[in-house]
Amino acid sequence: MTIPPPPVSRRRLLTAGAVTGLGVAAGAGVRPAAASAADTSIGTAVVAFHGPRQSGVAEDPPAHASFLAFTLQAGTDRSALGRMMRLLTDDASRLTRGEPALGDTDATLAVLPARLTVTFGFGPGLYRAARLPAPIADLPAFPIDRLQDRWSGGDLLVQICADDPLTVAHAQRMIIKDARPFAAVRWVQIGFRRSPGVHAPEHTQRNVMGQLDGTANPRGAEIDPAVWNPDGSSTLVVRRIRAEMEAWDKLSVSDKENASGRRMDSGAPLSGAAEHDRPDFAAVDEFGLPKMPDFSHVTRARVEDPRLKILRRPYNYDGVPDARGVPDSGLIFAAYQRDIAEQYVPIQRRLAEKDLLNEWITPIGSAVFAVPPGCAEGGWIGEQVLT
Amino acid sequence: MTIPPPPVSRRRLLTAGAVTGLGVAAGAGVRPAAASAADTSIGTAVVAFHGPRQSGVAEDPPAHASFLAFTLQAGTDRSALGRMMRLLTDDASRLTRGEPALGDTDATLAVLPARLTVTFGFGPGLYRAARLPAPIADLPAFPIDRLQDRWSGGDLLVQICADDPLTVAHAQRMIIKDARPFAAVRWVQIGFRRSPGVHAPEHTQRNVMGQLDGTANPRGAEIDPAVWNPDGSSTLVVRRIRAEMEAWDKLSVSDKENASGRRMDSGAPLSGAAEHDRPDFAAVDEFGLPKMPDFSHVTRARVEDPRLKILRRPYNYDGVPDARGVPDSGLIFAAYQRDIAEQYVPIQRRLAEKDLLNEWITPIGSAVFAVPPGCAEGGWIGEQVLT
Repeated sequence: MTIPPPPVSRRRLLTAGAVTGLGVAAGAGVRPAAASAADTSIGTAVVAFHGPRQSGVAEDPPAHASFLAFTLQAGTDRSALGRMMRLLTDDASRLTRGEPALGDTDATLAVLPARLTVTFGFGPGLYRAARLPAPIADLPAFPIDRLQDRWSGGDLLVQICADDPLTVAHAQRMIIKDARPFAAVRWVQIGFRRSPGVHAPEHTQRNVMGQLDGTANPRGAEIDPAVWNPDGSSTLVVRRIRAEMEAWDKLSVSDKENASGRRMDSGAPLSGAAEHDRPDFAAVDEFGLPKMPDFSHVTRARVEDPRLKILRRPYNYDGVPDARGVPDSGLIFAAYQRDIAEQYVPIQRRLAEKDLLNEWITPIGSAVFAVPPGCAEGGWIGEQVLT
Repeated sequence: MTIPPPPVSRRRLLTAGAVTGLGVAAGAGVRPAAASAADTSIGTAVVAFHGPRQSGVAEDPPAHASFLAFTLQAGTDRSALGRMMRLLTDDASRLTRGEPALGDTDATLAVLPARLTVTFGFGPGLYRAARLPAPIADLPAFPIDRLQDRWSGGDLLVQICADDPLTVAHAQRMIIKDARPFAAVRWVQIGFRRSPGVHAPEHTQRNVMGQLDGTANPRGAEIDPAVWNPDGSSTLVVRRIRAEMEAWDKLSVSDKENASGRRMDSGAPLSGAAEHDRPDFAAVDEFGLPKMPDFSHVTRARVEDPRLKILRRPYNYDGVPDARGVPDSGLIFAAYQRDIAEQYVPIQRRLAEKDLLNEWITPIGSAVFAVPPGCAEGGWIGEQVLT
């Protein structure tokens, strides 16, 4: 029996759409997924690395991610940073195409990119080392923060995402080895979303608390003005947010819904019927009380001006529970926006001031990074800043 | 434009075949994967929980796994063990169908089983607590072992596998909470294989060292006589094997191939041309030297009698590297066989005595478990042993 090749799947069309939507010039490295007897296009799918903006930001997030933060070695100056970024850019451009890095010692692990993206962010310390003014500043302290050094800060961030965890692990290994002369590992956060094919790509993800997470993200034409500066740069906030699962589990479903402002099952705002219904903050119930409680997460986090929205790209984490069975799980909150001070900080101030959900979530890590523009083939990430 | 439903995929046919091949009686809970506009059958796929043998053993392994080992609380006697196993069996039977557990506080996380299996193993300590003779014994000490308590032993094992990491995390949380009155968490090992759709299910997996891992597994009709006792029971060895990646990376490809006895790219034995070519241990090269070196992993691990093979079901692990970038990665080696003393131990003795690969791998955890038979609907895992 011969098995006919599968038709082009909706997923593949969407993936191709995402790549095209990235604004990459034709011929800049987009490789169509190979067709095969079994549908293994998840493994061979390529996201173009080169272009005016970095990849790993605007596309539908792949299932697995590793966020690597580095501390620069003493003496890593602007010139050394340029050498490091040439090297890491070369690694990223090869690995994302499904090719081994130049110094790749396990080349067989490089062949299935699975939508691999490698995205670079520069922390305030990198600009200090390069004796350059930083386009980002550390976040203000928020009263809800319980930050731990082990999950905070960083001079260089490398965000590695792919639909396959072995691909992420291999790319991480190559990047860490090639960064070694210049930088030490500061922290690594490994996260996951739903596996490919578990639900449709346009479906909002659930987090470990069971909430649909990301409904209010900018979509389609809203993304560009919220996320990108004219020069192709952006900024990134990474926060590690622990879920207090033992306490959360004691809440009733309706208490959980009041805290978030959305239904647990459908994700609909409490004022509406479907996930993407616009929350009506003026609606009142039969007792004259607001349907969207003033203290709910959705109410506090709302942004009316689409240019001020942030693009959340969160991943779940689930570490090892302790002997009593208390889980170590939560969210690697990653948000991209043009300007942290103008977009992220006001939202987070409102949430820190009064968000009922704060009872069940605790920020334990925090870091900010400038995201330099992308580069053309032969160029390198950071060339506009470091040369 | 309407999008036609996808044809039945090869993967789905293979999954259905695996379930049927499990020997489950008709009507015993096999639910076909739902068709939808996008192919999201990965999320809705169900592996039957009930049957004469436990699931999670003979099927093609899903992409994600959590191995949970528990230490029984003092006073957990045979009667308490029966109550615990009734409770955990009920959880497993519901969660594997995509239904919330009875005490499920995050029901929305239970709806996409993604081939979830929950498999129970009983350690030697459980039999002592129940004042029953144990069908398994601790492994002999091997000279290569560098075992750590934190990854070794356990009175109860729960192996949770699914094609989605959030599904695994949720099932783990439910099992840990319901086991709490009876048992404390001893260790948790979280592992991964390739994501669904990254390559064909029949494709052998690569491990973090880049080797094709599992080529010599029993296949098809070989599985039953190697894995299952007539009563539906089996045994399980779980070893945590650290990969010494820094040293491994310094080897040339041909040195790696000599250590393993197979080509890195194709997985072919050094005496052959294709992965599934039978290794020819008598073949010599132009210098009269054996093509399969006596010290290679394949040579030392070979088993001629199919009834003495072991069914390896390994998962990769990749923890957080240290500040110098040294990775914490390796293999959660899980092997099922009828009889550990007759099947696993002789292989491991030969490997411990002389396997060149030992230079680059270190066993750091070890545990053995009896795998009780499956149960019918209304029954519970362990009922043959504990009543």
